[in-house]
Amino acid sequence: MSKHPVISARRPLANTGIFRIEEMDLEFSNGQTRCYQRIVGSNEGAVLIVPMPDPQTVLLIREYSAGMERYDLAFPKGHIESGEGLLDAANREIQEEVGYGARRLEKISSVTVAPGYLYHSTHIVLARDLYTRRLPGDEPELIEVIPWRLADLDDLVGREDFNEARSIAALFMIREWLEKE
Amino acid sequence: MSKHPVISARRPLANTGIFRIEEMDLEFSNGQTRCYQRIVGSNEGAVLIVPMPDPQTVLLIREYSAGMERYDLAFPKGHIESGEGLLDAANREIQEEVGYGARRLEKISSVTVAPGYLYHSTHIVLARDLYTRRLPGDEPELIEVIPWRLADLDDLVGREDFNEARSIAALFMIREWLEKE
Repeated sequence: MSKHPVISARRPLANTGIFRIEEMDLEFSNGQTRCYQRIVGSNEGAVLIVPMPDPQTVLLIREYSAGMERYDLAFPKGHIESGEGLLDAANREIQEEVGYGARRLEKISSVTVAPGYLYHSTHIVLARDLYTRRLPGDEPELIEVIPWRLADLDDLVGREDFNEARSIAALFMIREWLEKE
Repeated sequence: MSKHPVISARRPLANTGIFRIEEMDLEFSNGQTRCYQRIVGSNEGAVLIVPMPDPQTVLLIREYSAGMERYDLAFPKGHIESGEGLLDAANREIQEEVGYGARRLEKISSVTVAPGYLYHSTHIVLARDLYTRRLPGDEPELIEVIPWRLADLDDLVGREDFNEARSIAALFMIREWLEKE
């Protein structure tokens, strides 16, 4: 186990309102020095929710990803607001994006997306015992909701338009979680 | 299937040498307009490699993640250089980070990390038939290599220090791929 590097300086480089970038000077325990840049996300992080209307089915959404400039399938997700609990954030996001709330919400894991370059965690939440409820969101268009049978996981993972790493990881982790229950 | 939004303008917002950020004006097919920011990665993207010294074992690396400010386990990965083939990039990265080359390299999938905010793809490569060979890398310290039995996947996914979404997704996808072979 290596000793953590010492961070001797941090300098803000850019803040675009959405992205805050800082530069860090590091000295590793072997004396090597490096200057790295990273994006500083919120301390609260984000939630990704796997909503299950029944024990065999998950709900995906199809929405436009501006970063990739295409429509893709994924699980609903969103930022946790300041002061908001992570399960409350999960329940708000599915009401905004899927049109359901959940009476049973469980955090099953937390994942990172680009740990070398980004300070950010996404908490994966399993949502069951759903009820119909829609909250207004800030989406530019109605989000398409697509039910998918867990038994057909292979077909989903093979699709060109289902490729977000967090959604793929969540899908497999949820299946393992359910098998253990 | 929604019609793609029209991107009416793109403006560069920041370029820190590592991160290039642009702002885009979009008009969705329903007439709604939005202004989004995204990080523009390389067209080549990155590779994540799952090296297998034998049919039961994968090789993980333990290295410092500056974004999260901690040491974590993950599969080796790196950027594809301009003009470099993706399998060549995979073979170079494992020689730099793990100390092995591979005679058998197969792309099994491509994943995104934050499709709403980032233009970037990571190609997952399975590397087999390994041989000892080390290329000099730019890492600040020697990378620890940790063999892990695929049969113990559950223990790995439950670990606090194995949480990168692409590595978790790759691990499950590789297991499915091998089961089908």
